[in-house]
Amino acid sequence: MAAPSVAELREHAGIGAEIYALAAEIYPICRSITGDGVRRTLGHLARHIDLEMHEAPTGTQVFDWTIPREWNIREAWIKNAAGERIVDFASCNLHVLSYSRPVHAKLPLDELKKHVFTLPDQPDLIPYRTSYYADNWGFCMAHDQLAALPEGLYEVLIDASLEDGSLTYGEYLHRGTTDEEVLFSAHICHPSLANDNCSALALLTLLAERLAPLRTRYSYRFVFAPGTIGAITWLARNEARVSRIRHGLVVSCVGDGGGPTYKKSRRGDAFIDRAMTHVLGHAGASPTILEFFPYGYDERQYCSPGFDLPVGLFQRSQFGTFPQYHTSADDLDFIRPEHLASSYRMIVDALDIVENDWRPHSTTPKCEPQLGRRGLYSALGGDHDGPAKSMAFLWILNLADGRHSLLDIAERAQLPFAVVAQAARRLEESGLLVEERCGASPTAAGRHPDDGRAGQVLPR
Amino acid sequence: MAAPSVAELREHAGIGAEIYALAAEIYPICRSITGDGVRRTLGHLARHIDLEMHEAPTGTQVFDWTIPREWNIREAWIKNAAGERIVDFASCNLHVLSYSRPVHAKLPLDELKKHVFTLPDQPDLIPYRTSYYADNWGFCMAHDQLAALPEGLYEVLIDASLEDGSLTYGEYLHRGTTDEEVLFSAHICHPSLANDNCSALALLTLLAERLAPLRTRYSYRFVFAPGTIGAITWLARNEARVSRIRHGLVVSCVGDGGGPTYKKSRRGDAFIDRAMTHVLGHAGASPTILEFFPYGYDERQYCSPGFDLPVGLFQRSQFGTFPQYHTSADDLDFIRPEHLASSYRMIVDALDIVENDWRPHSTTPKCEPQLGRRGLYSALGGDHDGPAKSMAFLWILNLADGRHSLLDIAERAQLPFAVVAQAARRLEESGLLVEERCGASPTAAGRHPDDGRAGQVLPR
Amino acid sequence: MAAPSVAELREHAGIGAEIYALAAEIYPICRSITGDGVRRTLGHLARHIDLEMHEAPTGTQVFDWTIPREWNIREAWIKNAAGERIVDFASCNLHVLSYSRPVHAKLPLDELKKHVFTLPDQPDLIPYRTSYYADNWGFCMAHDQLAALPEGLYEVLIDASLEDGSLTYGEYLHRGTTDEEVLFSAHICHPSLANDNCSALALLTLLAERLAPLRTRYSYRFVFAPGTIGAITWLARNEARVSRIRHGLVVSCVGDGGGPTYKKSRRGDAFIDRAMTHVLGHAGASPTILEFFPYGYDERQYCSPGFDLPVGLFQRSQFGTFPQYHTSADDLDFIRPEHLASSYRMIVDALDIVENDWRPHSTTPKCEPQLGRRGLYSALGGDHDGPAKSMAFLWILNLADGRHSLLDIAERAQLPFAVVAQAARRLEESGLLVEERCGASPTAAGRHPDDGRAGQVLPR
Repeated sequence: MAAPSVAELREHAGIGAEIYALAAEIYPICRSITGDGVRRTLGHLARHIDLEMHEAPTGTQVFDWTIPREWNIREAWIKNAAGERIVDFASCNLHVLSYSRPVHAKLPLDELKKHVFTLPDQPDLIPYRTSYYADNWGFCMAHDQLAALPEGLYEVLIDASLEDGSLTYGEYLHRGTTDEEVLFSAHICHPSLANDNCSALALLTLLAERLAPLRTRYSYRFVFAPGTIGAITWLARNEARVSRIRHGLVVSCVGDGGGPTYKKSRRGDAFIDRAMTHVLGHAGASPTILEFFPYGYDERQYCSPGFDLPVGLFQRSQFGTFPQYHTSADDLDFIRPEHLASSYRMIVDALDIVENDWRPHSTTPKCEPQLGRRGLYSALGGDHDGPAKSMAFLWILNLADGRHSLLDIAERAQLPFAVVAQAARRLEESGLLVEERCGASPTAAGRHPDDGRAGQVLPR
Repeated sequence: MAAPSVAELREHAGIGAEIYALAAEIYPICRSITGDGVRRTLGHLARHIDLEMHEAPTGTQVFDWTIPREWNIREAWIKNAAGERIVDFASCNLHVLSYSRPVHAKLPLDELKKHVFTLPDQPDLIPYRTSYYADNWGFCMAHDQLAALPEGLYEVLIDASLEDGSLTYGEYLHRGTTDEEVLFSAHICHPSLANDNCSALALLTLLAERLAPLRTRYSYRFVFAPGTIGAITWLARNEARVSRIRHGLVVSCVGDGGGPTYKKSRRGDAFIDRAMTHVLGHAGASPTILEFFPYGYDERQYCSPGFDLPVGLFQRSQFGTFPQYHTSADDLDFIRPEHLASSYRMIVDALDIVENDWRPHSTTPKCEPQLGRRGLYSALGGDHDGPAKSMAFLWILNLADGRHSLLDIAERAQLPFAVVAQAARRLEESGLLVEERCGASPTAAGRHPDDGRAGQVLPR
Repeated sequence: MAAPSVAELREHAGIGAEIYALAAEIYPICRSITGDGVRRTLGHLARHIDLEMHEAPTGTQVFDWTIPREWNIREAWIKNAAGERIVDFASCNLHVLSYSRPVHAKLPLDELKKHVFTLPDQPDLIPYRTSYYADNWGFCMAHDQLAALPEGLYEVLIDASLEDGSLTYGEYLHRGTTDEEVLFSAHICHPSLANDNCSALALLTLLAERLAPLRTRYSYRFVFAPGTIGAITWLARNEARVSRIRHGLVVSCVGDGGGPTYKKSRRGDAFIDRAMTHVLGHAGASPTILEFFPYGYDERQYCSPGFDLPVGLFQRSQFGTFPQYHTSADDLDFIRPEHLASSYRMIVDALDIVENDWRPHSTTPKCEPQLGRRGLYSALGGDHDGPAKSMAFLWILNLADGRHSLLDIAERAQLPFAVVAQAARRLEESGLLVEERCGASPTAAGRHPDDGRAGQVLPR
C-alpha cells in the first residue's frame, strides 16, 4: 500500500492563510484572455512552483477557433464636463469592458450611455463584462452613479491596444510513479474578481507546491489558462496526450462559504464523480451534486464529445447563483482563509481516494474472523453500543471479496473513506486482508470501465 | 431531414370547433358492438376520409371469441298505468341495456325493478350498461325517477332484434414513404356518450383528414372498431401485418379538461411511451403517466402477450375517474372545443417526434465550436442571462456523438422536442451537425431495441 | 402443481398459544454458548420433533475460531454485611455475567462496583451481559438497587465451572421431494429473554412439527445453535453441503407486536428477499425492509463472503431498537400468542411462495380469452366496479408469457401471492394456462440467477 502521503496534506495548518495571501497578491492585476495581465499573474504563481509558460501566437487555429489579437490596456477613464475623472480604470479594472477597442472622444450623455453597462438590480455594484469577439468599446459602472450623471459632454479615453501577439497559459507537472495523470485546471482570464478565480489559482498553486516533495502514484498536471480559448488551445496542443488523464477537476470559486458544489463529468459515473460525491457527502455541509450540463467553465471543453474526459467541476457556491458573481462585490472581503482551507481539504480528501483506493481480499472469507482476540472488537457482549466501533471492520470483511474497493465499501457503509482506509490497514496488518492480486478477479476491471485501469494492478 | 410537415398541423386554427362539430354530429346515434348505429357513425366519418368499411359475419371465430349476433333496436319504452311513457329510448338511448333481448310485457313495479339499473350515488343520472354475452333485457334510468315510481302495472317494450348479421368496423390508411405504421385506434361501440368516445372518433377523423395531403415517413392506420370484440376481430384479420406497427395509440375521452393521461404500453419503454411522456411533460398541465395495467380500452388486446405491440392509451381524464363516466352526464356540454384542440396538439407533437427524431453527429466534436461567429451565441460575455438562449445549441453539440437522438437530448436538457429540433436544424445549416450515417454507430440500434428499427437508417 | 400443503399451515388455529406455551417452558433455563442449559432447552424442543443433538468438543478449530471451554453455573449471589442475599442467580439468571469465572470473595462496595453492570437509563431493569472470550466475572443488577447499596463489605459467590467439554447444537431435517434445502436458524444461547430468543426457538419447533407430515418440494433444515460460534461450528461441519441451501431465514424476536422487520440477505435480490418483502408488504402492518448490513444475528455468518448464502433475517421489532432488548423486561409478558401466531403465518406465507411459485404460459396469448363464458368475468358491462374482481385473472393472462412467475405477477399487480396463485389455478383448470415447459424459455433461468435453479424445471 502506498504511504498515505497525500492524506498528510490534510493536516497542513495555516494553509488557508497562505492561499488567501497569494489570492490577494494576484487580485489587483487586470487579466483578460490574452495580454500581460495573464503573464504577470503566472509570474506570481511561478514563485511557488516550477511553472512552464506557453505562448500561442495570434492567428493560430485551435480546433474551430482562432487565437485572437492580444489585448493590453494602459489607461481608461471618463471625465465630466468639469474635467473630473468620474470613472477610472486605475481604481477598478472592472470599469472597462474587457477587449474594448481604443477610443478617445467627447460624447453627450445619451451617446455615452450606449457604451455603459450597469446592474439596475444591484445599483451600487460594478458589473464585469467582456466583448472578446465583437468589435466594441465600453465602460462598466454602478447603476446609481450612472443615474446621477447630469446631461453634458463627457470625455472618454480607453488607451488599449489590440495587436498581433499571443495567448499565454501556464502548466506545471508533478511526476508520480506512473504516467497516468490527474488534471487540475483553473481559468486565469478574469480581472479583479477574488473568488472567480484568484481563489482557485492560489489554491491549486499551493496544492502543487505541497505535492512537489511527495511520492505519488499519479502524475499531477496543473493548467492555468484563459477560459474557453485557453483550454481549447491546451487541448489542441496536447491532443495526443489526454488519454493519460484518469481523473480531473476544473476548480473555481473556492473561497466563499457556500456549497460545496460538485458538477459531475459528462460521463456521470467517472471515478472522480464518485470520489467527489463521497467527499462532499462527508464534509459536514449540505453539498450540491449536479449532473453534467454543457454550460459553465472549462469542463465544457474537457467534456466535449470528442474528448469526454473524466473531469468534473468543483466549487463552493455554484457560479451564477451568488449575488457577488461577476460584480465588484467579488472582492477580497468575499473570500475567507477558512473557506479556502476547507476547499483545499476536500480536494485533498478526493486525492486520498484517488491515490489510495484498493480492493481488499479477505484471508478468512468463510464466517467472520474472531476480531476479539485481535483486539479489534468490544470484549463485553450484550451491550448494543459496543459494535458501532467495529462496524468499519465488519463492513470491510463482509465486502472483501475482491469485487469491492475501499471506496465501494465506504459508500455502502456510509463511512468516510479515511475511516475505512485506516480500518483496512489494521485488518491488513492483522493478516485478515490481502490486496487483490493481478487478474485475480475478472470483475476488477469491470468496476471502473471508464478510467482505463482495466486489468491493471493498482501500484501501492 | 424530413420536411417538418406533421408539426405544421399544430398551427391549425379552428381545429377544436371542427372536432366538436363532428363529435356533436355522431353523438345522437345509438351504437353498440354491432348494428346499424356503427354503420351510420362510420358513414359520418367517411365524409372526411376515404374510409374502408369491413363486416365480419356473426359466428366468425376470432381467436378465443365468436362474433355475436347483430343487435338492432327500433323503439323502447316503459309506460305507467296511465299509459304515459315514463322512459323512452327515443329521448336518450342510454335508457336501454345494450344488447337487450326483445320484450313486451306488463309487470308490477317489483318485477320491473329487477330489470332497471340506476346509480344511487348519482341519483339524477342515467347509467350506461351493457349485456353483450348474457341473455338479458333491461332499462337504465335516474335513481330519483325510479324511487318516485308508484306501485302499479307497467308496460315495457323493447323492440330490438338479435339476429345473424355482422360486426362492422372502419379503417383508413394514410400511406407514408415507408411501410412502417403508426396505429390509431378508437372504440366506436358506445351510444350517446360524448367524451367516451365521440371525442376520439371525431379527433382522429380530422387528424386523418389533415394528414392526407402530407408526405410522411410513416404510414398511418386508423381503426374505428367496437371495443374488445372489434379490436380482436381487426387483430385476427390482420395478424400477419401487425409487425409493421412501430408506434400506436388507443385514443378515448379526449374532450374534457382533465389530465392529460398517458398509460404506457405493456413494454413500458417503447418509443411512443417516451414520446408521449415527453409531450405531456411539456404540455403545461400536470400530466398523469401510468404504467401499463391489463384493464382499460383496446390497448388490452394490442398489448396482449402474443402481440405485445408498442401501443399506449391517450386520454384527458382517465376512464372511470370522472363522475360523468358512463352516465348521461357525459354529454355535449362535458366536452369543449378547446380541450379537443389541445388533445389534438399533444398527439401532433408526439407525431412530430415520431416523424422527425434523428441522431445528430457533431462535425467539430473536439471542444465547442465557436457559436459566436456563426451568430448563435450572445456576443456580450459575463452576463449570466445570456447563455439561456444558447442552451439548446450547447446541449445538442455536447450530446451529438451519434449515440443520442434529438428526443434523448430533449429529455436530458428538459427542453421541448420542437425547440431542440429547431436548434438542431440551425446547427445543421451551419455545418456543425450531420445526420448519423448508416451503421456508423453500433449503439444506434441498441437505443430502441423494441421498435424494430435496429440497424436501419432513419429516412429523412 | 404441488398440492398447496404448506399454505394449509396458515389455517392452524391455536398455533399462537402452542408457541407461547413452549416458549414459556424454556424461558427459565439459563443458557449460554455452551453448557447444560442448551442441552436442556434442546431436550424440550425434542419432545416435538426428531431433533439430532450435536456436540463439538472444546478446542475444536472452526474456521478462525476455537470452541471454548464449557461453562456451567450452579449458584451465584451477593450477600450484604448482614448476610442477606441481595442478588440471587436463582431468582433471575440475568444477574450473572455470562461466562463469569468462579469467584468467592468479600469486597468493599467500591471494589464490587467494578464487577457490576447496570442500565442507568433504565434503572429498574437488569441488563444482559456476556464475557465469552475475556476472563472476567461480574453481576448485572438494576441501577436503582446498586445506587441504594450502603457502604460495607459484600460477599460474592459465583459457583461456576469453565472446563473442557463441548458446544451443543440441535438440528432437524424435514425431507422434501428434492435435496434442495430451506434453512431455518435460531440462536439458542440467550438466558431468560423471552422474545430473544425463546420466541423463535418455539415458533420454529412447532413449524417443523407441523411440516413433518407434509409432502414438500424442498427439504427443510432447522438449526438451533448458539449465536456466532454455534453457527460457525455448523457451517464448518457442513461446508460441503451448504450449496444445497436455496432459501434461508434466521429467525429471532418474533413474539412482540412490533415490525415486522426483514433484513435482506447480502445478495439483496435473492428469491427469499423478494418473497419476504412481498409477504410483509401484504401483512397489513408497516413493514421495515432493511438492506443487508454486517451486524446482527447469524446471517452474519451465512452471509460472509465465502458463503454468501441466500439467507435473510426475520424479526418483529428489530434487535436493539426496543427498550426491553437485552434486559429483564424481555420476559413472558412482552411476547403474546397473537404476535407469535402472526409471525408464524408470515413465515408460512413465504414458504407458500417458495414451494408454489411457477411460470404460467397462456394458451391464448393473442388477445384476451373470453373470460365471461367461462364464468370468470362480471357479466354486466359498463359498471366500473365489476372488473376489480377479475384483475388477478387479467394480470396473470397478460403476463403469462413464460417470462414471469406468479411472484413476478403478484409483485407487478400488487396483489397477494395467494390470490394470484388461486386465480392461476382457476385459469389452469379452465385450460387457459399451462406450466412453462423445461427449456421453453431461455429467460426462465435468468430470472433468479442466484438461486441455483438455472435451467431446471420447477417440480410441481
